Amino acid sequence: MTNKKEITAGIIIIGNEVLSGRTKDINTSTLAKWLNSLGIEVKEVRIIPDIEKIIIETVNKLRKRFNYIFTTGGIGPTHDDITAESISKAFNLEYGFHKEAYSILEKYYKPGQFNDGRQKMAKMPTTANLILNPTSGAPGFYIENVFCLPGVPSILESMIGGLNNVLIGGDPILNITINLRTVESEIAHSITLIQNKNKDVEIGSYPFFRAGKLGVSIVLRSADKNKLDQCNLEILKLVNSKRIEIVENV
Amino acid sequence: MTNKKEITAGIIIIGNEVLSGRTKDINTSTLAKWLNSLGIEVKEVRIIPDIEKIIIETVNKLRKRFNYIFTTGGIGPTHDDITAESISKAFNLEYGFHKEAYSILEKYYKPGQFNDGRQKMAKMPTTANLILNPTSGAPGFYIENVFCLPGVPSILESMIGGLNNVLIGGDPILNITINLRTVESEIAHSITLIQNKNKDVEIGSYPFFRAGKLGVSIVLRSADKNKLDQCNLEILKLVNSKRIEIVENV
Repeated sequence: MTNKKEITAGIIIIGNEVLSGRTKDINTSTLAKWLNSLGIEVKEVRIIPDIEKIIIETVNKLRKRFNYIFTTGGIGPTHDDITAESISKAFNLEYGFHKEAYSILEKYYKPGQFNDGRQKMAKMPTTANLILNPTSGAPGFYIENVFCLPGVPSILESMIGGLNNVLIGGDPILNITINLRTVESEIAHSITLIQNKNKDVEIGSYPFFRAGKLGVSIVLRSADKNKLDQCNLEILKLVNSKRIEIVENV
Repeated sequence: MTNKKEITAGIIIIGNEVLSGRTKDINTSTLAKWLNSLGIEVKEVRIIPDIEKIIIETVNKLRKRFNYIFTTGGIGPTHDDITAESISKAFNLEYGFHKEAYSILEKYYKPGQFNDGRQKMAKMPTTANLILNPTSGAPGFYIENVFCLPGVPSILESMIGGLNNVLIGGDPILNITINLRTVESEIAHSITLIQNKNKDVEIGSYPFFRAGKLGVSIVLRSADKNKLDQCNLEILKLVNSKRIEIVENV
């Protein structure tokens, strides 16, 4: 699989609530789809606890390995929100009130409501760039290639669009999904042959159960539209020859 | 935070479909809750692509770091299912037909239906221990402390109970959740003081939006029931003094 101009990302989900199973992470999916649309491929995700040493080590390891790193979680007002301070330490930067963030939050809250907890949300590397938050005021931030976003999915979702002009992507990754009424083992051998012939297309095969029926999603991904279409044709030819019902081809 | 007899686990989610955002991982939550009930704490999760070299490296790194490793995904019949072969290589073990697995699958399928793709699901480290699959026949397996499970959530869920007597847990991690009608910044300072006094209880604070209303879940976790109850009392005292409404305390 080669994408001529491959731009990569890693995601670091920070939060004991995900490791304990209490919260299901959905930010990975949101970020990955958005990044794919910009031509950036997520290569690894790590879910780690709210422990400063681990956050620093993980960020410092991954930021050298991928073009972009996105962290989620740990930038709120409470004692367990330690991402901003940990990132400051990872980059050896001063952690303190960020003037612009402070001013945004001061205006956001009513007079007398901008208490200690809320002020904490203005603390970060003092030289960070802000990521504006149209939902609840408190901004995220980025330093070099590390982008720090909140953990609450609806807030995160409202903030990422603001980064479209900051990130530099590669060739967008295109995809085609073909949902079939079959089981994987019926087509496994033929799909292997098609994959071997189509090296620049990544073919994924995923069984599903829907409305009480078994099926298989064949997902084709490539940055090259012609090669993607060619591969799609070969899958459709196979499906036709085996008289398999197509549920959907999108 | 110290659990006197801490038993740890790492989870490795193998699959391009999760990294592309197409599939939301829910196996982490299922595994973490089940492991917690056995007194095993999940310390890290990695989501990695279907690439042999990366699977081998990740498994070999993490299996030394944690008591148990669980992998999900990549043990089906198709070309992109490479977990079993990768695990064989990680442990330097022969990859081939596992006699017992072959016999289980041969009985599971009707005569003539046990084709190449299905036979592939009997291939794994030949000396592996099996994890039986009451849902769809094809077993998972384990080698030393590495447990390989399928990616389909309903199948995974039906298989893990079979491991309850194989895993050796520590003190079960108990938890109490207190859902409050407040915002984090109103209680952040007081919760910090309570956390500082209650070092053996992990206090998490998570904002939520539900039925159009803001709230905060305070989650207490500890292996020590007395300390957990003591901490819960302190939170309730705080809540009472601030006249905050309790939505739920479970």
